[in-house]
Amino acid sequence: MRIVVLSGGIGGAKFLVGVRAHARALGAEVTAVVNVGDDVRMHGLQICPDLDSVMYTLGGAHDPERGWGRVGESWVVKEELAAYGAEPSWFGLGDKDTATHLVRTQMLAAGYPLSAVTAALCARWQPGLTMLPVTDDRLETHVVVDVEGERKAIHFQEWWVRYRGDLPTHRFVFVGADAAKPAPGVLEAIAAADVVLVAPSNPVVSIAPILAVAAVRDAVATGPAPVIGVSPIIGDSPIRGMADKCLATLDVPVTAAGVGALYGPRPSGGILDGWLVDSSDATTKIDGIPTRAVPLWMSSEEATAQMVKDALSLAGIA
Amino acid sequence: MRIVVLSGGIGGAKFLVGVRAHARALGAEVTAVVNVGDDVRMHGLQICPDLDSVMYTLGGAHDPERGWGRVGESWVVKEELAAYGAEPSWFGLGDKDTATHLVRTQMLAAGYPLSAVTAALCARWQPGLTMLPVTDDRLETHVVVDVEGERKAIHFQEWWVRYRGDLPTHRFVFVGADAAKPAPGVLEAIAAADVVLVAPSNPVVSIAPILAVAAVRDAVATGPAPVIGVSPIIGDSPIRGMADKCLATLDVPVTAAGVGALYGPRPSGGILDGWLVDSSDATTKIDGIPTRAVPLWMSSEEATAQMVKDALSLAGIA
Repeated sequence: MRIVVLSGGIGGAKFLVGVRAHARALGAEVTAVVNVGDDVRMHGLQICPDLDSVMYTLGGAHDPERGWGRVGESWVVKEELAAYGAEPSWFGLGDKDTATHLVRTQMLAAGYPLSAVTAALCARWQPGLTMLPVTDDRLETHVVVDVEGERKAIHFQEWWVRYRGDLPTHRFVFVGADAAKPAPGVLEAIAAADVVLVAPSNPVVSIAPILAVAAVRDAVATGPAPVIGVSPIIGDSPIRGMADKCLATLDVPVTAAGVGALYGPRPSGGILDGWLVDSSDATTKIDGIPTRAVPLWMSSEEATAQMVKDALSLAGIA
Repeated sequence: MRIVVLSGGIGGAKFLVGVRAHARALGAEVTAVVNVGDDVRMHGLQICPDLDSVMYTLGGAHDPERGWGRVGESWVVKEELAAYGAEPSWFGLGDKDTATHLVRTQMLAAGYPLSAVTAALCARWQPGLTMLPVTDDRLETHVVVDVEGERKAIHFQEWWVRYRGDLPTHRFVFVGADAAKPAPGVLEAIAAADVVLVAPSNPVVSIAPILAVAAVRDAVATGPAPVIGVSPIIGDSPIRGMADKCLATLDVPVTAAGVGALYGPRPSGGILDGWLVDSSDATTKIDGIPTRAVPLWMSSEEATAQMVKDALSLAGIA
């Protein structure tokens, strides 16, 4: 069996731990297609927050308390950069992380595509599944905001980390998406999949940039594999992160039903064949999308693996 | 009064501390023209060991025990790079140092010349004198050696740090020197100088690359200012570093007389008007170069400042 997962960073990584566990039980192969919209060049380093979150988490090297970055991280480089007055100073650049970025940046400068760089980094972390950036091309999420009365577009990282989303926010723009081609292996994985899962990642800034690559959206929307999404909203709150702020910008209700409807049913041009919601949202109904209510708290690898089992069951397999 | 010093890294930096002290007493201005032949790009970072040694030492941030790099340094980035299998693994890339290299590399990538980058870094360190790289152009010292029976040219850093000079060594090549132009301010400083001092740096791999920039050598050799050298050899040993191995490659005796003769007298196409040797080398005589014997151990800032005073005295000033 082949499972493809569309994934953002931290929440997606946690979900993928459960996917990996259930896939091992089934003897299934997993391919994670990961968002790159958060990627950013800072201090000359190419930083890929979502790829790194997935890689570190699956490699057992993430910081479970902070959520992002490496466990046992130190901050000498960041403090020194600040002492030089080097901007931006608001980004959390850890020392261990810096080495990852150095290796990546040097490989990119040598001409390797991001997908090859990711594979090389994964040789160390052994994530136990195939990690693919959705594209090797530039695709950056920018955010149109008002800063001190002036409307401008800032990089997603600046919106997220520097401002914590606390700015009048008008829309999200996926710069480069029009021209971005799927990374090698992405379309092949989707075409060969028995099921495509949409991780409970932020629908607006983690999953939407993946689907902004037209060929990827087409492959998911029209491919042979059923597509099952897992709600990132429980009750009226995001499981983590700022999905509520992002959804509000799009005037989408912060509910499981709201996000399910945002993705939409496949037969009507959407991407979902099924929508897994939390037990507390059992009354969720969306036109054209079968839903199932199960516990969605990713409180342990076992609990998350059970969610994956439920998603596959909703897809009519396993 | 204006003093120009030709300087390598660690030994030159120590000498410059004394120059700065004596210059403060005189109200003199100091310009250090620093070797860039050791500069190297590693892990995508542009590393300038001699400029950094001078900058950190004059900024009071160097590690006096290790000799090079920053005091209180940590090594997380280096260990992580090694864990990725990133080569070279033999180079001492400290975390604090990494921030310096990141700032430098990013400024160079943005189009700033090395001299402007150096000035920007010095805004933090306040070295108390003007630090100029000898050139903004590429000038790298390579070493022709035999490695496992094969003759090849390796970067100076590889020869020095990885092999500790312990290879059959045939010659030193200053790659790019033919085309290298002096950095802005270098010729002006030499032309305006009341005295040019040659620091007790390695004559073969610290001072020679500076003089390999033809316009700099011409300015020193034919300029109005007297040129006084300070011997890096005391008895038959280098004050520090591997000048003995370097001199042996050139068949130059490892003595104060040997190095003085290598520099040669200005009237005969050399660069020296005077040569300061250690008290223990008082019998040193070189055709055409007046010598003076004084204590040359840079055991304290005061002792080093006294050496500078003696050098100026040998030049007939102060």
